Amino acid sequence: MANIKDIAKMAKVSVTTVSRVLNDHPYVSQEKREAVWQAINESNYQKNINAVHLSTGKTHLIGVVLPFSNHPYFGLLLEGIAQEAVKNNYKLVLFQTNYEEARELEALDMLRYKQLDALIICSRICSWTKIRKYSHYGPIVFCEDTRDHPYSATFVDHYKSFEAALEYLADKGHQKIGYCIGRKNGSNSTNRALSYNNFIKRHKFPFRPDYIFEQCLHLEDGENVMKKMTTMKEPPTALLVTSDQVAAGIAAYCLTNHIAIPEELALIGFDNQPISKVMGITTMDIPLVPMGKNLFLQSLSKDVSYKEIDVTLIERTTV
Amino acid sequence: MANIKDIAKMAKVSVTTVSRVLNDHPYVSQEKREAVWQAINESNYQKNINAVHLSTGKTHLIGVVLPFSNHPYFGLLLEGIAQEAVKNNYKLVLFQTNYEEARELEALDMLRYKQLDALIICSRICSWTKIRKYSHYGPIVFCEDTRDHPYSATFVDHYKSFEAALEYLADKGHQKIGYCIGRKNGSNSTNRALSYNNFIKRHKFPFRPDYIFEQCLHLEDGENVMKKMTTMKEPPTALLVTSDQVAAGIAAYCLTNHIAIPEELALIGFDNQPISKVMGITTMDIPLVPMGKNLFLQSLSKDVSYKEIDVTLIERTTV
Repeated sequence: MANIKDIAKMAKVSVTTVSRVLNDHPYVSQEKREAVWQAINESNYQKNINAVHLSTGKTHLIGVVLPFSNHPYFGLLLEGIAQEAVKNNYKLVLFQTNYEEARELEALDMLRYKQLDALIICSRICSWTKIRKYSHYGPIVFCEDTRDHPYSATFVDHYKSFEAALEYLADKGHQKIGYCIGRKNGSNSTNRALSYNNFIKRHKFPFRPDYIFEQCLHLEDGENVMKKMTTMKEPPTALLVTSDQVAAGIAAYCLTNHIAIPEELALIGFDNQPISKVMGITTMDIPLVPMGKNLFLQSLSKDVSYKEIDVTLIERTTV
Repeated sequence: MANIKDIAKMAKVSVTTVSRVLNDHPYVSQEKREAVWQAINESNYQKNINAVHLSTGKTHLIGVVLPFSNHPYFGLLLEGIAQEAVKNNYKLVLFQTNYEEARELEALDMLRYKQLDALIICSRICSWTKIRKYSHYGPIVFCEDTRDHPYSATFVDHYKSFEAALEYLADKGHQKIGYCIGRKNGSNSTNRALSYNNFIKRHKFPFRPDYIFEQCLHLEDGENVMKKMTTMKEPPTALLVTSDQVAAGIAAYCLTNHIAIPEELALIGFDNQPISKVMGITTMDIPLVPMGKNLFLQSLSKDVSYKEIDVTLIERTTV
């Protein structure tokens, strides 16, 4: 393989000029620049940018950890992260974990080995104890409330937003209120469960474990929820659904099966996904794209910052 | 910063053992492995994996070029790519281009600079002339028919699948058939336009440019199509919609505005996205997840291969 000296000779320029062209240095004439690239193409020489990393210590790669790459919630978050990455000339390395801890650890190891400049964990599996071992290798940023931990985060107060939605349903006269949630054990889910339990106690509504539907992530899960509900003697009259996708699945099932919304079943979704707008679903608006943008910017900074994002109710036609 | 010799001394093992631990070599006792990691953690030593790259020439990173990260079509494709990447212990570097050529060139440059082992271009912007300059730097894989070019591809025959859907609508008695498409100038769009034009000629249907709706990518675009259609004196009685998302947006608009499907407007979507199932939309099933898996496997191979994927019509309730 040709080296930088060979290229300089072929292009009839100095080694410095070749180096400048390779590093996008501005002070090189167009003529010389083209001569260098032509020589490079002819000689099949490749600048080994990994060698460049050794000198700068920067990879311009940011790792993004998410459970699924095809879920609209993470899709919008990733969109925000990607928009800001493009703007700042960074690339994203994707870690799709399917909520397996080993996959998250791989991402953390790449941070340790300096293959990434920082890591954005959109939904965490590892315990804080495990995460702590990686703290000094570079910024790790989260999409959950980390105010008890030394990591930056952009997050929503899920306790508060769940409470607001539940109280709205109670105001509308609902007493049998259920909810649909994704995974049971994430920190966001724990906060939501706490909020629900306190709400139930405050209003002296009976606690019905069968009003809580777990593993609700995708459109198709809405149908399963409805099938379970139709076998109940006393189904809930209102559902708080932590994903607009699932809420849309429920609304579509109700349309096909002539269950009147909101008369027979009231619905509040979460996220304000395009589908909730199109189907007229009342939802808690979580601005995921701006959140993604902020997560990216936090990942570039060594300073720890916490950014809470407000959630607002958008009234449409399902309550 | 400590080097590998310091670590060996601290852990009371040989330099070879440290190297084995760092490279996940199996023949190291658990005891020694832990001693090495403890020494590494205490000394704040980091294996610079970029230096490792210099010796192996492999990054275990595959670049994925897509226009948007939050579109369900690319979401499913990415899901397939990611599933196979996880299985083969590769990571993905995401390039969100928003269809800007410069972004695609960045990805190609990273291949040239050996920062990536291969590149998967899910939707191309650059001309083949530009792509050709990068051919010898590593595998470049496409999601379009490349049989005239020396690059692997997993693709759908868009001419044939468009034709099948159009003939199905004609069989059902439709003569005023329109279609919705994303960007106008992609190679897939060109094939679809050709298929439509030949269909029109074959059946001696009049060609109506206002029956072709461009820039239809997202759910919300369905509403715009319907708003245009309601101003037409002679609107199409059937629409072929190249994205289930857009078809779902159209179906939702029709529901809200009491336009009967299929009586007043017949609809065929594309992709067989979950939303088409939930809303009962007749669609052309494109198996995007298996396609993504195959794209990934092709990116690992230096041999060029072409894989055409069959598209099948799924009859539901909108025709």
